[in-house]
Amino acid sequence: MARGTRQLSLNAFIYPTGHHEAAWRHPDSSPERIYDVSYFQELGRTAEAAKFDAVFFADGPALRQNVKHYAAPGLEPITLLTAIATATTNLGLIATASTTYYEPYNLARLFSSLDHISGGRAGWNIVTTGTDLAAANFGLAAHPVHADRYARAREFVDAVVALWDSWEDDAIVLDPAAGIYADTDKIHEINFVGRHLKVRGPFNAARTPQGHPVLVQAGASNDGRSFAGRYAEAIFTAHQRLEDGQAFYADIKKRAAAFGRNPEHVKVLPGISPFIADTEAEAHALEREFNELTVPAYGLAQLKNLVGTDVRHLPLDEAVPVELFAGAGDVTDNSQSRLQVIAGIVARERPTVRQLLHRLAGARGHRVFAGTPEQVADTIEEWFTNGAADGFNVMPPQYPQGLEKFASTVVPILQERGLFREEYTGSTLRDHFGLPRPESQFSGRAAVAQ
Amino acid sequence: MARGTRQLSLNAFIYPTGHHEAAWRHPDSSPERIYDVSYFQELGRTAEAAKFDAVFFADGPALRQNVKHYAAPGLEPITLLTAIATATTNLGLIATASTTYYEPYNLARLFSSLDHISGGRAGWNIVTTGTDLAAANFGLAAHPVHADRYARAREFVDAVVALWDSWEDDAIVLDPAAGIYADTDKIHEINFVGRHLKVRGPFNAARTPQGHPVLVQAGASNDGRSFAGRYAEAIFTAHQRLEDGQAFYADIKKRAAAFGRNPEHVKVLPGISPFIADTEAEAHALEREFNELTVPAYGLAQLKNLVGTDVRHLPLDEAVPVELFAGAGDVTDNSQSRLQVIAGIVARERPTVRQLLHRLAGARGHRVFAGTPEQVADTIEEWFTNGAADGFNVMPPQYPQGLEKFASTVVPILQERGLFREEYTGSTLRDHFGLPRPESQFSGRAAVAQ
Repeated sequence: MARGTRQLSLNAFIYPTGHHEAAWRHPDSSPERIYDVSYFQELGRTAEAAKFDAVFFADGPALRQNVKHYAAPGLEPITLLTAIATATTNLGLIATASTTYYEPYNLARLFSSLDHISGGRAGWNIVTTGTDLAAANFGLAAHPVHADRYARAREFVDAVVALWDSWEDDAIVLDPAAGIYADTDKIHEINFVGRHLKVRGPFNAARTPQGHPVLVQAGASNDGRSFAGRYAEAIFTAHQRLEDGQAFYADIKKRAAAFGRNPEHVKVLPGISPFIADTEAEAHALEREFNELTVPAYGLAQLKNLVGTDVRHLPLDEAVPVELFAGAGDVTDNSQSRLQVIAGIVARERPTVRQLLHRLAGARGHRVFAGTPEQVADTIEEWFTNGAADGFNVMPPQYPQGLEKFASTVVPILQERGLFREEYTGSTLRDHFGLPRPESQFSGRAAVAQ
Repeated sequence: MARGTRQLSLNAFIYPTGHHEAAWRHPDSSPERIYDVSYFQELGRTAEAAKFDAVFFADGPALRQNVKHYAAPGLEPITLLTAIATATTNLGLIATASTTYYEPYNLARLFSSLDHISGGRAGWNIVTTGTDLAAANFGLAAHPVHADRYARAREFVDAVVALWDSWEDDAIVLDPAAGIYADTDKIHEINFVGRHLKVRGPFNAARTPQGHPVLVQAGASNDGRSFAGRYAEAIFTAHQRLEDGQAFYADIKKRAAAFGRNPEHVKVLPGISPFIADTEAEAHALEREFNELTVPAYGLAQLKNLVGTDVRHLPLDEAVPVELFAGAGDVTDNSQSRLQVIAGIVARERPTVRQLLHRLAGARGHRVFAGTPEQVADTIEEWFTNGAADGFNVMPPQYPQGLEKFASTVVPILQERGLFREEYTGSTLRDHFGLPRPESQFSGRAAVAQ
C-alpha cells in the first residue's frame, strides 16, 4: 500500500513513572504524583495533542510487584480513565480487566459507563490474569488453569457483548407527551447459559456510542491467539525481531479470517519502548543511565517469578546459565511465551546476569529501542510496511518526558511521511482504529424482556 | 444544643430527572441528557455551590424499572461520580454498591480509587440488594435470603475495610536515592477468612486521603439496623412522621453505642422530597402537576412489585383495600419496612388507588413535603432539633430545577438560622460530616506481607 493511505495506530501505554523499572528513581520523574489524577490527565492531554489513538493501562487485582523497590500503580484503571475522559475529547481510553476475577454484569456496566461518559472512546483489554496472588484475593486456593480461564473468558466476552447489545440502538423512544420512554420490544433478555457463567439480562443501560467498547487482547499463547482471532479488535503484542513480528501478524490475520472476520478489523500493535535522543550515542547513554538506576534485588526477584527458580545467588557479572530457560520451548501459557522471548535473548546474546536484568528492566520483555527520532520512525515504518504491525503500543521508558519526546520528535516525522494523522478524523476509538461500529446481535429479533 | 453549633448535613440524592416518577415527562426536565456526563457535572456543581455535604446515587445490577414508562438511570455510579469529582472540589461523592453481587477486592479498588481521585470525598452506600432480577444476572436461581445476605455483608465490609487499611498511612517512604519506595513492614496481608469470603491481600493501593471512604447504609430491618449500628457512619432512612423518625434515630444511636461507638459518629439522614413554591397553594399545585403526569400502568406495576400481588384490576378511584397490606407488620426485610411505611399511610389516610399511586410516585415511600421555603426549612429544623435527624437526604422531585430551588431558597434560610454552613470548613466528606479519620487497624502491627 502506498505511503499515506494506510495509517498507523499509536497507543500510549501508561505506567505511572514509565516502563523502565527504575524510572521512578530518575530525577525527571514524579513518583509522588502517582495517586494524583491531574498527573494522568496531563499525560492524557499530551497523548491527545500528539493525536495518539488511545492511552492504555495494564491491571491486575493483586499487589504483584515488590513495592519495596518499585513505585507500583495504585489507581484502578476504569475510574482513572473516566477522569482522563473528562480532561480530553478525542483520545481513546483502554483499560485492562480480568475475566477470571470479575462478574460479567458488573464489568459490562463499568465499560458501558466509560463509553457513554467519554462519548465513545472506551476499549477493554481482556485478560484472564495469570497469578496465584490474585486467586488468593478471591477466595481460591490456586489460580485456575490456563484452559479453564480461557473457557471462562470466551463465555465472559459472549455474555458481556450480549449485555451491551441487549438494548437495540433505537430502543429509547423518548416521547414524554405519550408517557413512553423506551420501546421494550427492543430491549432483550440475553439468557446466556454457559458452563462457567449464567446471565439473564437485560442490561440496565442503553447501547453505547460505539455500539460497544473496542475489544483488545494481549495473549500470545495458542489459546490467546485463538481468542484474539475470534474476538480481538486490537492486539498488543511483544516481539524483539521483525521476523517474529511478521510471523505473529500473519498468524493472527489468518486466524481472524478463519473466524469469518475481516483481518483489517484486527489491529496488531507490538510494544516498543524507545530511548530517544538527538544522537544514537546519547540515546544509548540515556538507556545506560536508567539501567544503572536499577536495584538488582528487585530485578532478581522479578526474574525468579518468571523462571520459577531462585536466582538470587547468581553472580551479577557472570553469564546467565542457559539451563535456566530449559523449559521455555513449550508455549502453552502467556507467561511461557514471555519466557520464550527471554530465552531467545539469552541464547542469542549470552548476556551476564546484570546485562539480562538491564534488558528486562526496560519493558519486561517488550522491545527496547535506543536511537534518534529518525531511527525510531524508521523502525516503526519498517515494521508497519513489512507486515509486522498496524501500529505500536508506545511504552516510554519514563513519563512524562519519554512521551513528550516521542510526541515532539517522532510523531512529526511519521506525519511528514504520511504514516500518521495530523488531525483526528473522528471522535471515537473505533474511528481512530478504523473499526466498524458493530450492529446489535438482537437487531430485529423478537423481544422477550419486560 | 444551641442553634449554630450543631450543623446540619445535606445530601443531594440524584435521580437523573428527579425523584418523582413522572419527572422525566415534565417540560422542565431533560431526559435526553441522562447519559450525558456534563448534565451530572452541572448538578454536582449546583450542589457544591450550595455547600451540600455530598451527592448520592442509588444503584442495583439489574434493569428493575419498567422503562417503557420511565427514564431509568443508565450510568454506573462509581464511574459517574469520578467524572463529577473532576468537576468539583469539595463535594462528597456517595455511590451505592452491592455486597451480594460484587467481590470485595474489586469493589475496594473502585472506592479507593474514587477516594484518591477526589482527594478524600468518597462514600460507599452499602446495600445487600433485594431482587431476584439481580440474582438472575449473576447465575443464581434466586436471590439469597435476607439473613445470608447480611452475613455476607458483614464479612464483605470487614474484608474491604481491612484491605483499605492494609497499607499503613506512612507505608510509602519514597526515597529514590536509596531505591526504597515503600516500607513493606507497613503493608499487611489481611488473611481474612469468613464463612462466605476469603481474601488474603495485601491491597494494591496506598491508604486513601480519608483513611477509608465513609461507610453509608440504608437498611431499616432489624438486621439492617444492627448492621448500621456496627458499621455505618451515615444512614439514609425513610420516615413519614416525626415520631417515627425520632424512634429510629434513638434506636440507631443506642445500637451504635452498644457496639462501643460514639453515637455522634453515626449521622442519621432521613429522606425528604420537597415541592417548593412561593406560596403553599402553589407548592401543592406543583405536586399535583407532577402527579397528573404519572402513568397509572407504571404505578400499578410498581405497587404490584411491592405488595407481591397483582393490583392492576383495582379501580383507580376506589379506596385501596386494607387487606393488601395484611402481611406488612413483620419487619424482617428492608422491602418489608418500606411496605410497613406504606401500610401506615393506607391505614391513616384511606386513600383511593389513584391517590396512593400519587403518594408513591413522589419518592417511593420517602417523605414528600409541599410548602414554601420557610415551611421546608421549618420541618428540617424541627426534625433536626427534636432528635429525628442529623441532616437530610434531599430528594428533589425534579432535576435540575428542584435542586436549584432548594439551593436558592431553603439553604439561605438554614444558613441564616445558623443551622447550615456558609462555606466548607474542610475538603473531605469526613470533614463535612464531622467524622474522624480512622486509624489503620494494622498500625504498629508486625508485618507478614512481602
